[in-house]
Amino acid sequence: MKYKVAILGATGMVGQKFIQMLEGHPWFQVSALIASERRVGKIYSDEVDWIVSKDIPKNVTEMEMLPMDPKRIDADIVFSALPSDVARDIEARFASEGFVVASNASAFRMEDDVPLVIPEVNPDHLGLIDVQRKKRGWDGFIVTNPNCTTIVLVITLKPLLDIGLKEVNMASMQALSGAGYPGVPSLAITDNIIPFIRGEEDKVETEPLKLLGYFDGKRIRFADISVSASCHRVPVIDGHTEAVFAKFSGKVEVDEIADAFRSLKPVDGLPTSPENVIVVRDEPDRPQPRLDRNEGNGMSVVVGRIRKDGEDRVKYIAMGHNTVRGAAGASILNAELMVKEKLI
Amino acid sequence: MKYKVAILGATGMVGQKFIQMLEGHPWFQVSALIASERRVGKIYSDEVDWIVSKDIPKNVTEMEMLPMDPKRIDADIVFSALPSDVARDIEARFASEGFVVASNASAFRMEDDVPLVIPEVNPDHLGLIDVQRKKRGWDGFIVTNPNCTTIVLVITLKPLLDIGLKEVNMASMQALSGAGYPGVPSLAITDNIIPFIRGEEDKVETEPLKLLGYFDGKRIRFADISVSASCHRVPVIDGHTEAVFAKFSGKVEVDEIADAFRSLKPVDGLPTSPENVIVVRDEPDRPQPRLDRNEGNGMSVVVGRIRKDGEDRVKYIAMGHNTVRGAAGASILNAELMVKEKLI
Amino acid sequence: MKYKVAILGATGMVGQKFIQMLEGHPWFQVSALIASERRVGKIYSDEVDWIVSKDIPKNVTEMEMLPMDPKRIDADIVFSALPSDVARDIEARFASEGFVVASNASAFRMEDDVPLVIPEVNPDHLGLIDVQRKKRGWDGFIVTNPNCTTIVLVITLKPLLDIGLKEVNMASMQALSGAGYPGVPSLAITDNIIPFIRGEEDKVETEPLKLLGYFDGKRIRFADISVSASCHRVPVIDGHTEAVFAKFSGKVEVDEIADAFRSLKPVDGLPTSPENVIVVRDEPDRPQPRLDRNEGNGMSVVVGRIRKDGEDRVKYIAMGHNTVRGAAGASILNAELMVKEKLI
Amino acid sequence: MKYKVAILGATGMVGQKFIQMLEGHPWFQVSALIASERRVGKIYSDEVDWIVSKDIPKNVTEMEMLPMDPKRIDADIVFSALPSDVARDIEARFASEGFVVASNASAFRMEDDVPLVIPEVNPDHLGLIDVQRKKRGWDGFIVTNPNCTTIVLVITLKPLLDIGLKEVNMASMQALSGAGYPGVPSLAITDNIIPFIRGEEDKVETEPLKLLGYFDGKRIRFADISVSASCHRVPVIDGHTEAVFAKFSGKVEVDEIADAFRSLKPVDGLPTSPENVIVVRDEPDRPQPRLDRNEGNGMSVVVGRIRKDGEDRVKYIAMGHNTVRGAAGASILNAELMVKEKLI
Repeated sequence: MKYKVAILGATGMVGQKFIQMLEGHPWFQVSALIASERRVGKIYSDEVDWIVSKDIPKNVTEMEMLPMDPKRIDADIVFSALPSDVARDIEARFASEGFVVASNASAFRMEDDVPLVIPEVNPDHLGLIDVQRKKRGWDGFIVTNPNCTTIVLVITLKPLLDIGLKEVNMASMQALSGAGYPGVPSLAITDNIIPFIRGEEDKVETEPLKLLGYFDGKRIRFADISVSASCHRVPVIDGHTEAVFAKFSGKVEVDEIADAFRSLKPVDGLPTSPENVIVVRDEPDRPQPRLDRNEGNGMSVVVGRIRKDGEDRVKYIAMGHNTVRGAAGASILNAELMVKEKLI
Repeated sequence: MKYKVAILGATGMVGQKFIQMLEGHPWFQVSALIASERRVGKIYSDEVDWIVSKDIPKNVTEMEMLPMDPKRIDADIVFSALPSDVARDIEARFASEGFVVASNASAFRMEDDVPLVIPEVNPDHLGLIDVQRKKRGWDGFIVTNPNCTTIVLVITLKPLLDIGLKEVNMASMQALSGAGYPGVPSLAITDNIIPFIRGEEDKVETEPLKLLGYFDGKRIRFADISVSASCHRVPVIDGHTEAVFAKFSGKVEVDEIADAFRSLKPVDGLPTSPENVIVVRDEPDRPQPRLDRNEGNGMSVVVGRIRKDGEDRVKYIAMGHNTVRGAAGASILNAELMVKEKLI
Repeated sequence: MKYKVAILGATGMVGQKFIQMLEGHPWFQVSALIASERRVGKIYSDEVDWIVSKDIPKNVTEMEMLPMDPKRIDADIVFSALPSDVARDIEARFASEGFVVASNASAFRMEDDVPLVIPEVNPDHLGLIDVQRKKRGWDGFIVTNPNCTTIVLVITLKPLLDIGLKEVNMASMQALSGAGYPGVPSLAITDNIIPFIRGEEDKVETEPLKLLGYFDGKRIRFADISVSASCHRVPVIDGHTEAVFAKFSGKVEVDEIADAFRSLKPVDGLPTSPENVIVVRDEPDRPQPRLDRNEGNGMSVVVGRIRKDGEDRVKYIAMGHNTVRGAAGASILNAELMVKEKLI
Repeated sequence: MKYKVAILGATGMVGQKFIQMLEGHPWFQVSALIASERRVGKIYSDEVDWIVSKDIPKNVTEMEMLPMDPKRIDADIVFSALPSDVARDIEARFASEGFVVASNASAFRMEDDVPLVIPEVNPDHLGLIDVQRKKRGWDGFIVTNPNCTTIVLVITLKPLLDIGLKEVNMASMQALSGAGYPGVPSLAITDNIIPFIRGEEDKVETEPLKLLGYFDGKRIRFADISVSASCHRVPVIDGHTEAVFAKFSGKVEVDEIADAFRSLKPVDGLPTSPENVIVVRDEPDRPQPRLDRNEGNGMSVVVGRIRKDGEDRVKYIAMGHNTVRGAAGASILNAELMVKEKLI
């Protein structure tokens, strides 16, 4: 018996990725596609501009789209790929009516009582669920995953925390799929890069402090590091590349950093979990998004070019699949963790 | 009467750019194209894979290519677009035989007695010419310009020095033309970025210290700042984009930084000099290489997105045309400065 | 004294190109920018997503946008860059109120009494203006130019007519700018081509028959040739490339074809007219859109690779700038012709 | 027990594709990698610029490269990915020494006594093997597959032959991987197409006549159709797209053509054979190379946009994976057919 899952925002880029990743999932089965009013009652394949692969998975092709009304939805889990402006109301409505909402939207990420979770980084933050339900009086609850760029970054920062990480400067080269569909016009990005992504830098500079923070049973005490981000769009389909400059409280060595990366462990028993959370490549010119984005079925972060920069500083390149590890896969992995922890 | 100029390495990407920029130049006239042995005696248009514009300028199309032998060359100035490994011997040979060599190659850049010059940044470093000639016993001399990525960066760092600049982290997104022709294979860079450019980071981390250093009449005392670079290749034809994180010794403000950028003055009277050395754009999404690389005929550096990052830190985006301001135009501007300073 | 010109649809891609090409035009001066209702009263630079060059020409930056009401517009000529569905009503309204409408829209192109004109191909078709005004009782009139792909094709077919042209198969590789802005999503076209452009093939198969037809004083008798087109979108910013297979009624030779191309004459005295209507290149790998699209300031068609294919067949490649020769420049050239012919 | 296979030209693009497709092959096992003299004795992974996927298959990583000397090679089949100029001598040497050579090179394709085969199109042409061995006195023999562009085209022409196909005009939009590695420089193809591929059109115009010809027991009588090709390079990684204009001896209908495409049967029992040789898509904008190139693991040809063009003419788009169905997969499928036919 599989858990029934519904998808909020099923026609967008991340919604499509949810559908693709849930095809044949051993624990979850898509039971409902929830759409905005104008699409209710219509057939999924007639409405979607399917872009993430050759064909729409057969199990959803003929599904009729349902309204954003919790009473009409039969599901155990609701995955949300909504834009943040509409996510706030709708996710709250579903959570208050008893659904488990695993959200990729940014609306609730920084709320005090909402877990912002990467299973390999801060699974204990799920403890906030109790705080949330008590405070809000909801039957269900909301768990969020971070922004795509944040996820790739924070997975690499987690193992550096114990070595004395203090300051991070990060310049990203982000894929087109991060802007959704139709997203970035081809005329804007051909033979070009765009050094701006609205709202992105703010998310990348704040979310890591919560993710790497300490849950004291009541709330998250933010990590005492600083993160500065400069975010740029490049003509790459999938895969965010990040140039990270990290400063530590003391002396560090390249091997020590590489070992720390390799030591980050996956959560046992989750179907979507990669074998290696971080893959460290030794070639001088890796990771590259086109070659490495599907590592671990898109769930691994690939790191390379770890270089020392004075006694207490290191720089490296991190790359991860932004719509898999950075979006749909992040929500699914969170849901799997909640199943394992018997929260669903 | 124009000065006669010869071009070393005339068939490569930068060599072509020299020819393109020198067409119709008011002071300089191409008198010789110097090539490697296998090309000597052949006609330029038969040998070159012309890529920088629609057609080869008519004044050089039918030129016969000459050997790397100073005795066979009739010229006042030799522009060098040689690869660094061959530049060392050949540039020295021409300088020793009395030629003024304005070089884009890296071979001599960091030599104690060789000026590494950007006219708007450190024109007084030309004083090293006397030191060089005395030390080496040459009739002529060598003056170099920096690496393309360094130039764009240092033009923006110069006005920040007086404000207390201490540390720089810089992530570059570099154009394909920087790798020459054929250079980067299309299969390597389509739907991809390559986070590695051989030798580049080392140049970008050392050359600024000399450029921003103090010439005491005998030698250059390097600037007391640190620069760390992470260099990446992106699918853009021309124009290097750089995300700069700058740390200062004290408090700084965005307006102060913008004013400093705008205050950098061009050298009066040089034909290739742009009206504005640095153009500051206010839009949230500029500079962009395809839109801004031809600003000031490719000789301006365009800056945007100046953002504060705590009290003493600022980040911004800088972009410049890598084969114009960053290569051929840099050497030509140096030669123009030397003419103005009556060094030629 | 210049003619005052208004632009219908000034914020779109072709509207921007009109503005760019009219900057500094010796005969025409932009006097009004006409916009849809929601933009009326707003400032042009606030509303436009300027994409065709670095900066908006200064003469229009601060212009207030005016409504689609002929009584509110002070102009001698109205250039129309409207989408075809709205063009029908609005262009008719302006023509009926006495304006000369030079339209790039498809709405009226195939109407019996509306000239569809390329100055170098069928200037005499302007004779239809009298027919049109008589029939419709308008004070003004409408003159149209063809679809961008048609223009490039027909300019090369015109000189072949006298040699016995019978059948044409043409496969196009069309630039992104032809789809307007935002137009083609980058996710749809990166590492891809799209073998379909809505409505395009029908236009390319019918418009040439009218353009190459004979005006008998009352109407156009269509040319007796057949044209079949297969239209494809490729990741190129500007410049449509067309592979043409032409069949003749008798034997033809490559030199004869090349001579015919070179013999097509520009109309004397038109400011936007190129020196060479068709440029024939001899290299085996030309024309190429990035290298050749600005030939003749974008108004020349560049042809290459003329090859025989049996006795009576020839194939060749034609390329032209789709938003210059194929759109804004086409309307402007038509207006210039009308001024010369004293029709304005 | 698997057949041992050797690969000639293992470091190039097609050689890599052979290795990738043979990993885990149920009938064949790579026993030798044969290289040019300067690479003999070196380890494969040290020499190859691996580009076709993330990592080199483990079974060949550490293989030592062997010389082009039949006496040193232990294999049942030799797959050749050699450039044509060297293929002639070396393939003959291996065939004369008793090896079965399945070649992707063009050297022997049009020889009277050498089978040029696509299993679904002309499997009976393998009968030429006897003719070849007798005539040349070889212990082994050579079987070739066509050029990549030819294969995609001919698979779609085969079912049209019985309907009365007479004339074909074809314009191709060919992928970058067809030019090998490093192949097309990124500076040459970014924001561009190149309307020329050396030698390609000649192959595409002659090979189909042999492939679609009749084997009378002694030689191939060429098909009585004409094929004209215009070949163009586009910025697509994999997948050749072809716009086909077909003329018939009589009236044809779209449905008839579609049915004919669907009726082409795979050869039973070959491991690399796709379920559907031709997949016909109904969407107006398919096939597209990025979406459809992996159909049937890259072995299907995908067809779409079948349109009538007068009574006796039809046009359509065909697309196939050029290095799979068009190169390595073609040779492997031929070898599988020979095993099935007990020729090996």
